[in-house]
Amino acid sequence: MSTRTPWGGRFSEAPDALVQRFTQSVSFDRRLAPFDIRQSIAHARMLGRTGILAQPDVDAIVRGLEQIGREVEAGTFAWSEALEDVHMNIEARLTELVGLAGARLHTARSRNDQVATSFRLWCKDAVRAVMAALDGLAVAILGQARSHVETLLPGYTHLQRAQPLRLAHHLLAWVEMLERDRGRFVDLLARVDECPLGSGALATTTHPIDREGVAHELGFSRPCRNSVDAVSSRDFALELLAACAIAMTNLSRIGEELVIWSSAEFGFVELSDAFATGSSIMPQKKNPDVPELVRGKTGRIVGDLVSLLVTVKGLPFAYDRDLQEDKEPVFDATDTLVACLGVLAGAIGSARFDAARMRAALEQGSVTATEAADYLVAKGVPFREAHAVVGALVARAVAQGTDLTALGAPVFRQAHPAFDDDVMSWLDPERAVERRDVLGGPARGRVLAALDEAEARLHERGDESSCTTSST
Amino acid sequence: MSTRTPWGGRFSEAPDALVQRFTQSVSFDRRLAPFDIRQSIAHARMLGRTGILAQPDVDAIVRGLEQIGREVEAGTFAWSEALEDVHMNIEARLTELVGLAGARLHTARSRNDQVATSFRLWCKDAVRAVMAALDGLAVAILGQARSHVETLLPGYTHLQRAQPLRLAHHLLAWVEMLERDRGRFVDLLARVDECPLGSGALATTTHPIDREGVAHELGFSRPCRNSVDAVSSRDFALELLAACAIAMTNLSRIGEELVIWSSAEFGFVELSDAFATGSSIMPQKKNPDVPELVRGKTGRIVGDLVSLLVTVKGLPFAYDRDLQEDKEPVFDATDTLVACLGVLAGAIGSARFDAARMRAALEQGSVTATEAADYLVAKGVPFREAHAVVGALVARAVAQGTDLTALGAPVFRQAHPAFDDDVMSWLDPERAVERRDVLGGPARGRVLAALDEAEARLHERGDESSCTTSST
Amino acid sequence: MSTRTPWGGRFSEAPDALVQRFTQSVSFDRRLAPFDIRQSIAHARMLGRTGILAQPDVDAIVRGLEQIGREVEAGTFAWSEALEDVHMNIEARLTELVGLAGARLHTARSRNDQVATSFRLWCKDAVRAVMAALDGLAVAILGQARSHVETLLPGYTHLQRAQPLRLAHHLLAWVEMLERDRGRFVDLLARVDECPLGSGALATTTHPIDREGVAHELGFSRPCRNSVDAVSSRDFALELLAACAIAMTNLSRIGEELVIWSSAEFGFVELSDAFATGSSIMPQKKNPDVPELVRGKTGRIVGDLVSLLVTVKGLPFAYDRDLQEDKEPVFDATDTLVACLGVLAGAIGSARFDAARMRAALEQGSVTATEAADYLVAKGVPFREAHAVVGALVARAVAQGTDLTALGAPVFRQAHPAFDDDVMSWLDPERAVERRDVLGGPARGRVLAALDEAEARLHERGDESSCTTSST
Amino acid sequence: MSTRTPWGGRFSEAPDALVQRFTQSVSFDRRLAPFDIRQSIAHARMLGRTGILAQPDVDAIVRGLEQIGREVEAGTFAWSEALEDVHMNIEARLTELVGLAGARLHTARSRNDQVATSFRLWCKDAVRAVMAALDGLAVAILGQARSHVETLLPGYTHLQRAQPLRLAHHLLAWVEMLERDRGRFVDLLARVDECPLGSGALATTTHPIDREGVAHELGFSRPCRNSVDAVSSRDFALELLAACAIAMTNLSRIGEELVIWSSAEFGFVELSDAFATGSSIMPQKKNPDVPELVRGKTGRIVGDLVSLLVTVKGLPFAYDRDLQEDKEPVFDATDTLVACLGVLAGAIGSARFDAARMRAALEQGSVTATEAADYLVAKGVPFREAHAVVGALVARAVAQGTDLTALGAPVFRQAHPAFDDDVMSWLDPERAVERRDVLGGPARGRVLAALDEAEARLHERGDESSCTTSST
Repeated sequence: MSTRTPWGGRFSEAPDALVQRFTQSVSFDRRLAPFDIRQSIAHARMLGRTGILAQPDVDAIVRGLEQIGREVEAGTFAWSEALEDVHMNIEARLTELVGLAGARLHTARSRNDQVATSFRLWCKDAVRAVMAALDGLAVAILGQARSHVETLLPGYTHLQRAQPLRLAHHLLAWVEMLERDRGRFVDLLARVDECPLGSGALATTTHPIDREGVAHELGFSRPCRNSVDAVSSRDFALELLAACAIAMTNLSRIGEELVIWSSAEFGFVELSDAFATGSSIMPQKKNPDVPELVRGKTGRIVGDLVSLLVTVKGLPFAYDRDLQEDKEPVFDATDTLVACLGVLAGAIGSARFDAARMRAALEQGSVTATEAADYLVAKGVPFREAHAVVGALVARAVAQGTDLTALGAPVFRQAHPAFDDDVMSWLDPERAVERRDVLGGPARGRVLAALDEAEARLHERGDESSCTTSST
Repeated sequence: MSTRTPWGGRFSEAPDALVQRFTQSVSFDRRLAPFDIRQSIAHARMLGRTGILAQPDVDAIVRGLEQIGREVEAGTFAWSEALEDVHMNIEARLTELVGLAGARLHTARSRNDQVATSFRLWCKDAVRAVMAALDGLAVAILGQARSHVETLLPGYTHLQRAQPLRLAHHLLAWVEMLERDRGRFVDLLARVDECPLGSGALATTTHPIDREGVAHELGFSRPCRNSVDAVSSRDFALELLAACAIAMTNLSRIGEELVIWSSAEFGFVELSDAFATGSSIMPQKKNPDVPELVRGKTGRIVGDLVSLLVTVKGLPFAYDRDLQEDKEPVFDATDTLVACLGVLAGAIGSARFDAARMRAALEQGSVTATEAADYLVAKGVPFREAHAVVGALVARAVAQGTDLTALGAPVFRQAHPAFDDDVMSWLDPERAVERRDVLGGPARGRVLAALDEAEARLHERGDESSCTTSST
Repeated sequence: MSTRTPWGGRFSEAPDALVQRFTQSVSFDRRLAPFDIRQSIAHARMLGRTGILAQPDVDAIVRGLEQIGREVEAGTFAWSEALEDVHMNIEARLTELVGLAGARLHTARSRNDQVATSFRLWCKDAVRAVMAALDGLAVAILGQARSHVETLLPGYTHLQRAQPLRLAHHLLAWVEMLERDRGRFVDLLARVDECPLGSGALATTTHPIDREGVAHELGFSRPCRNSVDAVSSRDFALELLAACAIAMTNLSRIGEELVIWSSAEFGFVELSDAFATGSSIMPQKKNPDVPELVRGKTGRIVGDLVSLLVTVKGLPFAYDRDLQEDKEPVFDATDTLVACLGVLAGAIGSARFDAARMRAALEQGSVTATEAADYLVAKGVPFREAHAVVGALVARAVAQGTDLTALGAPVFRQAHPAFDDDVMSWLDPERAVERRDVLGGPARGRVLAALDEAEARLHERGDESSCTTSST
Repeated sequence: MSTRTPWGGRFSEAPDALVQRFTQSVSFDRRLAPFDIRQSIAHARMLGRTGILAQPDVDAIVRGLEQIGREVEAGTFAWSEALEDVHMNIEARLTELVGLAGARLHTARSRNDQVATSFRLWCKDAVRAVMAALDGLAVAILGQARSHVETLLPGYTHLQRAQPLRLAHHLLAWVEMLERDRGRFVDLLARVDECPLGSGALATTTHPIDREGVAHELGFSRPCRNSVDAVSSRDFALELLAACAIAMTNLSRIGEELVIWSSAEFGFVELSDAFATGSSIMPQKKNPDVPELVRGKTGRIVGDLVSLLVTVKGLPFAYDRDLQEDKEPVFDATDTLVACLGVLAGAIGSARFDAARMRAALEQGSVTATEAADYLVAKGVPFREAHAVVGALVARAVAQGTDLTALGAPVFRQAHPAFDDDVMSWLDPERAVERRDVLGGPARGRVLAALDEAEARLHERGDESSCTTSST
């Protein structure tokens, strides 16, 4: 009979070594140790408060767990795969340290509610780290945006020059994405923030426990409402993964732009040497590895999300062992996202945007063709007609290997009587941008207001989070 | 020169027929027609209000659009793939109906902001339909739960009988999942609920439009804050897909349970004949096709989510044509989810849960072994020791081909001196359930309270939604 | 009692209308009709041959099915959702046409083996269509490659100019990908090419059928070896989807290159007007919608693959209704892939690659820095040292806002004594390319040989396929 | 100037510490070390053979690499994240050991072709390990099948009892799946089995290298045909991941069946104690954790596949840093698949299938209803009519709470005149199975033949693989 496992009673044979290695989780869930210890301390105290355990036992348990916490932190804790998971490892050590009292800690608790509780505590921390990192990247982008209110560049659609923009306006689009990403994490936190502890294996316990007390001591908003759901459901983890995957997809677009803008052909941005790498074989190369890797790592986070969706699909209630596969994707996704946000903040904050190259790009490619059409519309020509007239002018310029503006006013007048001499100054990019003085548009005043608003939002949050930090 | 496309000016060759078929979207985006018409009416009125269009033009446009709305609804509208998408189809018809005024509707608007606006309007409607369907399923489950407070069954972990539960308690776990699913849709609605209109192709417009006015007339909470973001971002659609995928993964678990419970071996539930199907070859078969298909359709919704994540990955700003691929997965996912919720509500509402079969399952399999261990713990035996003692008793029962309870009190007493004669009645499932009188647990009082709370929540919501409906 | 369904005997209630709509598949599987008819004819003939059916019945069945085939082709067949699927629709019509004989067609067959057989027949056809379309794209690319042996461009890594290449060499890299894609379809065809017919619902039949005969008549290589596997397994469909997804991921890279190369900044390629589209608002725009959509549609095919992987995950044997979800993703993926291959062949075949722009790009960006390092290595300097020396020269050029080659020989000599005056001509891109005269390299002779080989391969295949076609 | 990186020449600033950690790959690619060393030895020898390096240098390099190989194997090699990846770590150590000669090893090679070569070598090994593990599981299943030719059970569709089968026949369906899985690995191996070495960064090299010689020395079938493709393409890795994901989806179905069959309600199988685990709280539990985890780990492999599909999507040629993300999913997927195959082989090989429980299940549920219908068909009744008659009999049995066979011959005769007294013996499951004497069917002779064939196939392969092993 196995004496090592916590469930050996009815078994006549020890687990196969292969099985032990296959079913263990301590190689990755040891990361939950600080949270497991926190919850065990709260659980023990509650058992004492409700008279389920005697106070001396509680004191011994808490003392033992605190020591284990120090051992884990110092890296001296001796993890054993034979003890399956983080929880059994800690319990075994606790019994070693405080004897019989340690064995009593498992009263009114099962591994099913225990693991769900530690995992949710971990996720709450991770969500806060992601939120801080999202804000960090937003701050870095806003810094560049503030410096580039006067920098004009062509906005692109289909990677074709479309209409002139302020760089600050373009960068504010990135900030908007991050803001929604943050909103998703705020919202999902409410669904993570429920305490499963006390749900037992699936049916709570026969002991008169105090679930609300433990939940609040652990910083949860409330206990989970149904014990079967509490130990079985992982949709909170799926939602966390989904929010990471969506945020990462957004980041991949920033990554793509930085890669394209770093090309010799665009030349809109140069990453600082500290945030780029070279080639082992081509001495001239300066590669945008950081944005490339950010873009590339989108795959792993989408993979993490799919991984858990597939795992959860079709599982009957309550707990199934398949759910042990819930932690690794969540660890990987949040680690990766936080790392990408941090490194991108550094790369963007230290990058040099090349206003001259951007401006030069504006002078070619008939970027202000829309202006010419709008000019006609302003004179009462229906838009579709104006579009056709200017389209023909563009075709003529392309055929001549030149640019719309280079055709000159006479050619314009010839194309349509509503064109007047002032059309050429009307096509000036700066004027084109300033004419777009609409809420959410690129005119200077609108961009400055948007910047102020975004900075205020971030600033307020920073205050909040430093308050939060100080009060913790 | 192409005269059919809205952008032919600079082109010397008409699109290849293959290209036309490849790039058209009207085969699926015609579904946006009612929303496109609504937005165009609001847009036209705003153009009138701000003096950009003359009132007679506005009146003609609105009249024309209303007629088109009726044609679409009646199915008499003549869709043309050559006109690319829903927007161009409607505009072409409008010009046919009201002449030059129709051509003026496109003033201060681009297809980029137009399509984003119609799509968001559609999504808002779809989200509300999903929320109603989630509530509909919750109501059906609660109905069964209310009828089965007294029905006991074995709760399962690892598909092994674990501990006794009330069926109502088990069903309430399903309701909890649906409640969180609903919360996700509530939360994401706030991010969908911003109006892109007025963002133009990417840089707003030179006309003095009133973005707030249009946004409010269309029922949006506010305009999007940044024009580049407004036409480029699809994270709102990704979030909607993610919420659908998570909800569907949850449903797949209900589906799996219904399939397993419908098996001859379990026999816990019998679907009504109206919600089951037979076999073309085996006359005895009654197949749980509905829960099977719900489970199976999880794949398509996860696929829809992955589809758009992959599409969006790595796209530079602003609009890229890739984004045309955003609508089909969203249509498919929300349609499928609503259908699954509806059919599952019908299947569950009309199913017959077999209390006798469930009770019989409780009598075997040593389901109350935990009780025996708890009995010892209550007498001061450390839990791990109690577990081992009872484990050995179970092993003995298994070896004898019988059940723990069949061993009888003397055998128990022999196994541990703390066992007394009252152990056998302690093992009664009903008493076992009632001892679990903990918040979120299966004891009668807890289950009744949870039922009351859930019903009140649904009831309140029903009131709200009927109010909402009447005021719309 | 339902009289419409093929399995109503034991049922007391007709299916709910919602259920009927939910479970029907005829809205999409009607596409299998020609294959269903073919298999039914083969099945009927076999039943005649083995004496299971009388010859007059067989004749009536075949006649009826042939008429149905004509009705389906002409679009006059009246499909009914109430009849669930394509198979029941056809059988119902057959009975209408030929009476009792029609009802006998189902002898020794179940819907489970019937649907698996029709689906495999469809897949075999689809695989051949994909293979032809892959070859079609390869031919279009090879055509451009043949025209651009003398066109030099910078090869890129990290989207940074790296080393000079011939355009033909770059295009041959695309062809290599397509060749491997084709190989995957060839290989999987062998696993699709087994006939499930005769497997019945899961356990074959009691009739003395001739499975080999039917398999060969239908053009399958052999019957499936195990009846349970034959009706349950869909890994052949998963493999088909995986091959589509991988091919599409490859195509997305070609799409990305075409989009980037179409930008004003690169200007390496101009799509023909017939394969590009414009903007409804910006008259100057010529958008690479075709490669964008190809890139974007990668999402839907990856989604299709994931969809079926999720659906199949965790299904017990044998047939489960979940498997009804197998067809739509396969239809969508193969349709999309074939369309993308076709439209891309047109776009590439008619595109104009701009040799002058490519050449100009070679003159800047220190693309031949590796050459300078290799120069030193050829003189015995260790590579790492040579790399460092040239790296410093590049840094100097960058600081001066110029290019490596513009520094001039004296500066080179100053940097390292091993540099001689001939270094400048050594850096000429054409010479750099010709020095790479290695198997698989860009030197003219290597590229011409590779072109010859690829063209011969395609040519041979074309002959084969026209032979195949003529013999069918 | 950075002196640590292999590309520092043009850089004025060392990489940020965050960047170094973010971009390093040595934490996971060190696993390629043995393959990197093998390729470097082959590369060095080729450089010697072609006169590019002097023989003493080659000898020093080979000696140094062999020592490094021993250090890696012994675990004494000092890995450094600052040196980025496995290749730079080994090169740095080599230079330490053998001086200047070490620095010359990089001649005519780039990290791009180097990493692609090591990765392909690793994949070839992994594929062979997967194939061996697939065969190992097939052997274990065949062992049980051989023992259970005489064991009858109900075959299921929709998890409803359908028709009687031999257990061996059911298990052979599992073997069929594994056989196709193996075929996929065989086929993809041909596409992995090409050598990128000599492709350089993307454009080969100016040195007169011998690509064929190196390829053959490393055991590759041939060199890659195009240098740009060779360093950029990862479809071989995608295909490997796809084959793993499909195989795993197949395994998940076996896992599901083992979980369901292990339930108390089915009771068809009992896993050995060595391949099951217990509950920390419920002493009676014996949980099928191994098949649950196999089923659950399907998620991670599908996630791995999606991960790389997303990463590769939309990457321009040639190498992009995103591709560094190719290795972890492949490592994880093949490790997981091999582990699952191994542990499942152990679990199935040591499981006890309960013939009595299976037989008992056959006696209930009207499993032989199809037989009754076939009986009528054999007497000339059209199948659809026979189905309806028996369906009504089943409905009657269900209403009486009994089974079809319990109705007795008179009731049958009453239902249809074609029923005779011998119908009851016709319904005997053993006779029903034997009547299905069709290729691929469950009759004893067919099953024995299929077993013989499968065993012979495995046996032959075992011989081959031992031959292969001995010759290596």
